[in-house]
Amino acid sequence: MKRVVFIILDGLGDRPIADLGYKTPLQTAFKPNIDKLASKGIVGLVHPISPGVPPGSDSAHLAYFGYDPTTENPGRGSLEALGYGIKIGYDTIAFRVNFATLSGDVIIDRRAGRIESEYASQLAEEVNQEIKSINGFNFKLINTLDHRGILLVSGSNVSREVTDTDPHTIGVPPLRCKPLEAASSPENAIRTANAVNRYLRRVRGVLCKSEVNKHRMEEGKPPANVILIRGAGVKPSLESFHDRWGFKAACIAGGPLYKGVAAALGMDVINVPGATGRVDSNFSSKFKHATRIIKEYDFVFIHIKATDIASHDRKPLLKVELIEKIDHEMEILSNLSSEDVLIVLTGDHSTSCITGMHTGDPVPILFHGGVRIDEVKSFDEVSAIAGGLGFIRGLNIMPLVLNAADRAEEFGIKTSSKPRMYRMHYDR
Amino acid sequence: MKRVVFIILDGLGDRPIADLGYKTPLQTAFKPNIDKLASKGIVGLVHPISPGVPPGSDSAHLAYFGYDPTTENPGRGSLEALGYGIKIGYDTIAFRVNFATLSGDVIIDRRAGRIESEYASQLAEEVNQEIKSINGFNFKLINTLDHRGILLVSGSNVSREVTDTDPHTIGVPPLRCKPLEAASSPENAIRTANAVNRYLRRVRGVLCKSEVNKHRMEEGKPPANVILIRGAGVKPSLESFHDRWGFKAACIAGGPLYKGVAAALGMDVINVPGATGRVDSNFSSKFKHATRIIKEYDFVFIHIKATDIASHDRKPLLKVELIEKIDHEMEILSNLSSEDVLIVLTGDHSTSCITGMHTGDPVPILFHGGVRIDEVKSFDEVSAIAGGLGFIRGLNIMPLVLNAADRAEEFGIKTSSKPRMYRMHYDR
Repeated sequence: MKRVVFIILDGLGDRPIADLGYKTPLQTAFKPNIDKLASKGIVGLVHPISPGVPPGSDSAHLAYFGYDPTTENPGRGSLEALGYGIKIGYDTIAFRVNFATLSGDVIIDRRAGRIESEYASQLAEEVNQEIKSINGFNFKLINTLDHRGILLVSGSNVSREVTDTDPHTIGVPPLRCKPLEAASSPENAIRTANAVNRYLRRVRGVLCKSEVNKHRMEEGKPPANVILIRGAGVKPSLESFHDRWGFKAACIAGGPLYKGVAAALGMDVINVPGATGRVDSNFSSKFKHATRIIKEYDFVFIHIKATDIASHDRKPLLKVELIEKIDHEMEILSNLSSEDVLIVLTGDHSTSCITGMHTGDPVPILFHGGVRIDEVKSFDEVSAIAGGLGFIRGLNIMPLVLNAADRAEEFGIKTSSKPRMYRMHYDR
Repeated sequence: MKRVVFIILDGLGDRPIADLGYKTPLQTAFKPNIDKLASKGIVGLVHPISPGVPPGSDSAHLAYFGYDPTTENPGRGSLEALGYGIKIGYDTIAFRVNFATLSGDVIIDRRAGRIESEYASQLAEEVNQEIKSINGFNFKLINTLDHRGILLVSGSNVSREVTDTDPHTIGVPPLRCKPLEAASSPENAIRTANAVNRYLRRVRGVLCKSEVNKHRMEEGKPPANVILIRGAGVKPSLESFHDRWGFKAACIAGGPLYKGVAAALGMDVINVPGATGRVDSNFSSKFKHATRIIKEYDFVFIHIKATDIASHDRKPLLKVELIEKIDHEMEILSNLSSEDVLIVLTGDHSTSCITGMHTGDPVPILFHGGVRIDEVKSFDEVSAIAGGLGFIRGLNIMPLVLNAADRAEEFGIKTSSKPRMYRMHYDR
């Protein structure tokens, strides 16, 4: 039985970039350590959800950990809240919030000039003082980091089955919150959406007259005069990662969403110095701690956000540089014995440095440690086409991990009254 | 329309072995006849169930023959019973039995020193004399071959939805028989499990005081002082292979499980001299008989167990030798015209010579005879990655066989009130 180091480089996959001679950042980067793992292991390509579908990071991570994102996603809002240590009760929904800037009717900055927490938290406080409840629902706005926040809506029969008001683009007005057409209880969804829309209208009133925004405008900064909400979520109630797959697991991540996913699955979230979830994160610190804690855990999940940030910011050269830096710091993993430790390396999705958006292109994945050795010697989107794992789906990953770690139960064996295999996504 | 010779080398796939220069046994073996079939045919890799899932042999064979193992497996116990010619009635379940050795509380030998049938059958007889029924269920213990046996439990509403007592490992106590959590009738499953547990306790009493075991212990042999049961099964009631796929089929196998699967599907089971289901089986005899009976049948299934046995015993060099021997005896198949006969060669799963266990790694497969010819010239786990069949599932095999044999009906055609395609697993 092997232990597992499971590394996700967020938004790793990409498309050919003219400035890189029509190669991807991963094809361009000098990454001897990663290529060594590939040449002594087996590679392939993952469709995180299914071919052509660009995943959200929450759904992709859930699929990779063996939770069906179509039925088992508690919602981005509550996962991210959990990552900040915000507790969510029953009869409560949580939205991810952006403080943003409206000019006339349209959004001109989805992050209000990346307003600092110092000011955004003051705005949230003012909103909470003025507006406590609407139509029987209680509202609480929490600033988390910079322009980001969480909105909690609680009350009897509050429904998560409502739409985002964040249009995910600029130059258009915020959307109205609407009940989902397929809502299981349309009445609760309508009541929730109505209350949320009334709340958001009143929030704009409070933000517009705030001294904080007056100061910002005087300083020529975009005011945070609107909030955009998305990803309504509920208190997670998922089977734990340990119960589902038998691994005692830990997470090393900087970004709150990833910590939140890990926490929702009952993984221990280990805070390591310098893990910021930004491009300046201390990669060395993450890998060092992983090699230390792998003695206490069966499964260590390492998440690095930097590659995705470079892609969203459309900076292919920065992405190349970050991959090279990560590769350099990964050298320490060569101290792990390939007989005891399975290393899995992949991205949660592709993010295009051209469009700055997630794409539905598959992501290279590698397994190293006792597995079959294919003929692929380097790790990138094109080399991986010839890999021995072939094309897989996100939900195939955990069964493949169990197998490669010599922990899989034979299909059909019934040593437990709730056989593990029955819960595997073997039909994908 | 072609006839089909369908060859399964049990447990054929493997992982890289240090002693073989990090190659698999199949990569190492000199096998000119098999490689010739590969170079004039098309190859690929099969996930018998789905990626990463190690299959039991019963489930893998059912999937390959186009029966969904998640819904259409009557159970290993009854398939194996059928292979020994043991008839199972309605209101009866059959378990596969191992005579085993307990020391104190824990199992120290799952096969009681491979006790011979001469003695094991005497033990079964003593048990049957002493214990005939418990809680309204009738019990009958049958010794089949060496340490192996079948336990029949019959009575109104007996349930197969109970767990194994065989933990599939040593150094631990036998498990208790428990109702499955997902049992369709929990009450019947509980009644069955209770009666089985009482029976097994009483069996231990009978075995402990048997003269047979006293003699064994005097001779320094491990006593068969416990039975382990697994794979509860019911009387098979599957649509026949002929009705589902249109083939008049025959089976040439030594192992009882494989004969049992064939019998459950209505194939003619042909006994050929020297087919033992062991490493000493007469491979030549099997292939010779196949080339003879292919004139009377549309589909001849040849099963060879030896490769799996070498893997379970962790003997990679023996596995190489057996593959070379099988390859040598396969030369006779070159007498079959590739215009009349489709040859399919694969394994039912991979078995690791390192762990001695089934793994979820995919298995190479080849089709020869009128099919497209890809660029792969040798037949092994790594070469097959580039094969023209790509990665397929066990349930894809029969539609691919029908197609290659020019027997497939066009999708959507309704010449029968129960069109064949509707029963195909085209969505896998």
